[in-house]
Amino acid sequence: MDLINKNDVKTIGSIGAGPIGAGWVAYFLSQGLSVKAYLHNESEENNFYSMLRTAWVSLKKLYNVKKLEETNLEIFFDLSECIKKVDFIQESAPEILSLKQSLYKELGEIVPKNVIICSSTSGMKMTDIQTLCKTPERTVVAHPFNPPYLLPLVEIVGGKKTKEEAVNWVYDFFIKIGKSPLVLKKEIPGFIATRLQEALWREALHMVNNNEATPEQIDIALMNGPAPRMAIQGQCLAFHVACGEGGMATNLDQFGPALELPWTRLKAPELTKKLRDKMVDGCEKIVKDQKFQNLASERDKKIVEIIKIQRK
Amino acid sequence: MDLINKNDVKTIGSIGAGPIGAGWVAYFLSQGLSVKAYLHNESEENNFYSMLRTAWVSLKKLYNVKKLEETNLEIFFDLSECIKKVDFIQESAPEILSLKQSLYKELGEIVPKNVIICSSTSGMKMTDIQTLCKTPERTVVAHPFNPPYLLPLVEIVGGKKTKEEAVNWVYDFFIKIGKSPLVLKKEIPGFIATRLQEALWREALHMVNNNEATPEQIDIALMNGPAPRMAIQGQCLAFHVACGEGGMATNLDQFGPALELPWTRLKAPELTKKLRDKMVDGCEKIVKDQKFQNLASERDKKIVEIIKIQRK
Repeated sequence: MDLINKNDVKTIGSIGAGPIGAGWVAYFLSQGLSVKAYLHNESEENNFYSMLRTAWVSLKKLYNVKKLEETNLEIFFDLSECIKKVDFIQESAPEILSLKQSLYKELGEIVPKNVIICSSTSGMKMTDIQTLCKTPERTVVAHPFNPPYLLPLVEIVGGKKTKEEAVNWVYDFFIKIGKSPLVLKKEIPGFIATRLQEALWREALHMVNNNEATPEQIDIALMNGPAPRMAIQGQCLAFHVACGEGGMATNLDQFGPALELPWTRLKAPELTKKLRDKMVDGCEKIVKDQKFQNLASERDKKIVEIIKIQRK
Repeated sequence: MDLINKNDVKTIGSIGAGPIGAGWVAYFLSQGLSVKAYLHNESEENNFYSMLRTAWVSLKKLYNVKKLEETNLEIFFDLSECIKKVDFIQESAPEILSLKQSLYKELGEIVPKNVIICSSTSGMKMTDIQTLCKTPERTVVAHPFNPPYLLPLVEIVGGKKTKEEAVNWVYDFFIKIGKSPLVLKKEIPGFIATRLQEALWREALHMVNNNEATPEQIDIALMNGPAPRMAIQGQCLAFHVACGEGGMATNLDQFGPALELPWTRLKAPELTKKLRDKMVDGCEKIVKDQKFQNLASERDKKIVEIIKIQRK
């Protein structure tokens, strides 16, 4: 593959006028890139600019950004005009598989082969999206989390016809522009973050459906319980540190039996020795040489700060 | 029931020397209460004090607390000595049902009937814990989230033999001492917060088991994706605001079909009109009169602060 050099990417083609499309445009502009944005029609323009201005308020606090008006943004209502002479495309069209398939068919024909095309899809597989595309080797999922101008995660995974080189290019590109990309080992529906969130969300819907909790109670429980901790230490590290010096090994040995209790509708996998070791080794990899006491006190220091923010 | 007046509670009896027991003791002391703490044996004492000192570092930042040494704490290795003349008991013994049942049998006989006994259990039902207790009407689950001196959530629910008056007493008491208590509508295993966390956790274990993700990737995904947002807006409000003016109604109408996709191993409930309306009404109750724009900009402002904390 003869892809554009990542360091030569100056102009982004962005497709989509929703919160994800607009959020991406704001983020690219904040990083000094030029953007050509395709909107479906003129009626979307006002709302699109309104979302950019909202995003800009936060971007100013996190990055060294110019005034929004001083950035290089062009709006297009003609797709083929928009994507002429762009160095990278981020597609955030509606989540309808047939629509994305037609779009990638068209893009596959008109976008030069050396330009990478990424999809913001929340959960579809690129293997399915790229079926009608004649140049699928450079099409990759790059899934952000809403709001995409703020949350750093970008989940990256190719489809069956995507070349590994393209996936690596996308990883390097998002690193370069300050995101926290994550390359998936396998193409799974929902990727990693949406799957985790979706499990929690479906359990929430079950509880509301069964009159076990109201939406308000679910939110109180999350905001005052697991969420502040999870923002500072993901769930694996949180459990590793919660169990003191013994870490994840103690956690699994102690709470392993609870995996068989009906503490959610989701059945757990069998806690084999192999799974136990993968979890323990994985946590040790996260903490490297850090001592338990240090991990706990760093956690506490940051949770204190989050609680102060929540109190405002 | 002739319960102790909540305003007359001066001395707490705390049972358990683990992170939950020690965390509770630190919290009660920080709120100006006296504590009599039961430890199983002397070998636990050093570690117990070490946990108190760790907790105190954070408590000083959030509350107007004295020096730890100036607080009124007594350690006991004899249970019946410990719980003499206490006004409230918080039990944080190991999560073994038979052990808790014997303990509540004993407490039920020696603790005066006007004293409330709460259990920190993470997921057991009080109906099961109180089976051997002769005075079960004042036994209540009061489940904190680890670390209990920091996270404000306390999930409250009685068993079949618990009197409603006792549940209300516990709610008022935790409000009085600065916690965020949540009274459950039904006694369900895992309560609300653990169920939500457990669904996410089991999905994480499945992914590790299937080589779809490493523990490290799971944590990166959470910390850079859903978690910072969830700390500021619970998952219901987060989805309500993510969909702009249309709120949860738009979310469910748009993403409803995704509930049937395999985005987690947990099967969703059917999205009936009734469930849809409960979610929509519940979200409207959370936001009251706040406008979408305001909710989004408040969210962004606080996520920016969390990202700054994470960067440290």
